[in-house]
Amino acid sequence: MGAPPVKRTSRDIRTANRYEVLRQIIAESPASRQELAAATGLSLATVATLVGELLGLGMITEVGFEESAGGRPRGLVTVDAAGGALIGVDLAETYVRAELFDLALNVLARAEEEVRPGESRPERVVHHVASAVGSVVERAGVASARVLGAGVSVPGQVDRATGVCAYAPSWDWHDVPLRDLLAERISHPLYLDNPLRACAVAELWCGAARGCGDAVVVNLGTGVGAGLVLGGGVHRGVSDSAGEWGHTTLVLDGRPCHCGARGCVEAYTGAPGIMLNLREVSPDSPMLRPGDQTATVDALARGVAAGDPVAVRVLEDTARYVGAGISGLVNLFNPEVVVLSGWVAAAFGEPLLDAVRGAVGRHALRRPLAAARIVLSPIPTDPVCLGAATFALEGALRTARKGSGTRAVSRARGTDAP
Amino acid sequence: MGAPPVKRTSRDIRTANRYEVLRQIIAESPASRQELAAATGLSLATVATLVGELLGLGMITEVGFEESAGGRPRGLVTVDAAGGALIGVDLAETYVRAELFDLALNVLARAEEEVRPGESRPERVVHHVASAVGSVVERAGVASARVLGAGVSVPGQVDRATGVCAYAPSWDWHDVPLRDLLAERISHPLYLDNPLRACAVAELWCGAARGCGDAVVVNLGTGVGAGLVLGGGVHRGVSDSAGEWGHTTLVLDGRPCHCGARGCVEAYTGAPGIMLNLREVSPDSPMLRPGDQTATVDALARGVAAGDPVAVRVLEDTARYVGAGISGLVNLFNPEVVVLSGWVAAAFGEPLLDAVRGAVGRHALRRPLAAARIVLSPIPTDPVCLGAATFALEGALRTARKGSGTRAVSRARGTDAP
Ligand SMILES: [Zn+2]
Ligand SMILES: [Zn+2]
Repeated sequence: MGAPPVKRTSRDIRTANRYEVLRQIIAESPASRQELAAATGLSLATVATLVGELLGLGMITEVGFEESAGGRPRGLVTVDAAGGALIGVDLAETYVRAELFDLALNVLARAEEEVRPGESRPERVVHHVASAVGSVVERAGVASARVLGAGVSVPGQVDRATGVCAYAPSWDWHDVPLRDLLAERISHPLYLDNPLRACAVAELWCGAARGCGDAVVVNLGTGVGAGLVLGGGVHRGVSDSAGEWGHTTLVLDGRPCHCGARGCVEAYTGAPGIMLNLREVSPDSPMLRPGDQTATVDALARGVAAGDPVAVRVLEDTARYVGAGISGLVNLFNPEVVVLSGWVAAAFGEPLLDAVRGAVGRHALRRPLAAARIVLSPIPTDPVCLGAATFALEGALRTARKGSGTRAVSRARGTDAP
Repeated sequence: MGAPPVKRTSRDIRTANRYEVLRQIIAESPASRQELAAATGLSLATVATLVGELLGLGMITEVGFEESAGGRPRGLVTVDAAGGALIGVDLAETYVRAELFDLALNVLARAEEEVRPGESRPERVVHHVASAVGSVVERAGVASARVLGAGVSVPGQVDRATGVCAYAPSWDWHDVPLRDLLAERISHPLYLDNPLRACAVAELWCGAARGCGDAVVVNLGTGVGAGLVLGGGVHRGVSDSAGEWGHTTLVLDGRPCHCGARGCVEAYTGAPGIMLNLREVSPDSPMLRPGDQTATVDALARGVAAGDPVAVRVLEDTARYVGAGISGLVNLFNPEVVVLSGWVAAAFGEPLLDAVRGAVGRHALRRPLAAARIVLSPIPTDPVCLGAATFALEGALRTARKGSGTRAVSRARGTDAP
């Protein structure tokens, strides 16, 4: 039991600083070194070094000068959107979605494959991922060598260092060496992580948690969990399994949960739990589509919009469970923002948000409640793909050495040149 | 609602690095600059600068050289225990305890004052704090000018920046300007915070969380809460109120809690909740001492030691509540260690630890469970005083400029010289 303490090495810190500067440039361009130093809290000398490295890697580019009051004109840099491509893969229980991004995080191509029931063997899943990745590279028309990496979000517990999927409940996977299997079919560097972290980093970079130090991204879907942004970065835990909020006890000795415990948050707020909430209110409701979570949730959402009292009651019950659980997160973390994400949150939308806000207002302590905004995710596309792409970017910054990076990019550009 | 994003400034980062280097020197002395760089992940050049600053402030001292393989002998530094004094104050519901530490964090003097029922007015509480602080300075025989600051742990929600106690439930305080009131009686710089953070930092510096990146310090007393160590530092939240784990819903619609909600962890695991657990098992038990939490908990602990079945049952019930709650923390944070701290944990000791371990083993998910040690706090003295003293140290490092700091220490030494 227990792991030896993990110390951040100088290299970790350099990578983190490089990543932070690039993230700032992506968020607000063009930017001067002075503005980047002010925004990141790094010294001007450190920023100048990091900007030089990013220029050398071809990830950013000089775009002119701005006058400064009484001083020399200041050089401005911006992200070089064409300086590389990133792939983000949302590997989910029932589908694989891949998106290819430029370095400014614009989507250049999308592909989706269905994962049918019975296709849960690792070989079949790997086949779908490889196929979707191949499609987006082809559709975007980028040279394969320009792809800096592919981030893959896996619906389970993944060891980032080894790329082994320790456990994926939906497929009953145990200790599947997923990265090695994927590497047999995909030549890009691969970075595996989970959807909670992908959603958290997507909100941090491009969504409701931009500029936040502390944020909680609550993912409501088939399973539920919480992506944690703490101190401006994503919290992963000592063995990469933080964020399993779905298995917090909410009702001691309550409904059985697939994790083996009882009364977990997920048993009341995951899509199957919401189907049970509906069954408790109205066992014969036509909104109940046995075996089809998506259709049931959609029917309930339509019912709420139409003022159907059963649907409204189920929404209120569900919001009470979600709200009691979120109150615990607000009291514990004292975050600036709680973001409701995931397909169930998207399906119910504003009525769920309103009801959850009401429930949190009744449960949480005054001081942390006053500090916390509760909002729906504003990200219009798949946040999991976006977040997964940023894992690839982070990985590329970690492994890039100035020389090799420059060569790789030059070579890619050469291949691509008209 | 919501606060503007707080960016770490260069100065914050310098203070944090200074603090980290000093903490490492206090933990392991003597140390070379090379060892400090390796242990902190900072560059050798940065460490050399910070060591120079700490030498200039008189907080550390050169103690000779060690041979290095094939290189120049390396200079060694150690903390200068006499380089300043720190005061830590544990302001609790029923007592005020002050301890005076040297810079190596050895206790040089202690003082305690009772806060009687009816003495909850701020003026009375301030009187006791000032009196205890005066006593430890006098008993330790240190010149007042050598005291770098006093950290004060307040049992409630404190705004660290303004020193205002927003809410202290036991005394029904609302928005009391406590630091200003204390400053009328105490001339040392004052740093206010809460006992959850004090216990967390005490475990991080000197206890079971030494060397840990992620740890949870569960405080079991009249109230319950969790001090959070995340990424190697104490997590405070956006308005300094993180850690209120006691008000996480454990039993939806369960026992009423003084916070206004129902079924909170604290309602089942705080000392008054444990008295209710006893009442449910045996309403007429002679172990039940109405109005006296401490006597009841002590009687239960003696009963457990003697094998009394009622006491054992109450311990098991309580451990089941504590364990279900801690499982949620293990699943959410994926920490290296969970430390049981506080007077209730100390009173029950090993039997509580064993029962909690069993309950967590039944509730938590396999992967985070495998990573988490669960232990009793090994700190033999009052961890709150120790933690509060480190807040004063951190504050002193933040405000110290090289010149002024050196002068202050020189002056203090001058005053003190034989
Ligand atoms: Zn569960
Ligand atoms: Zn409560």
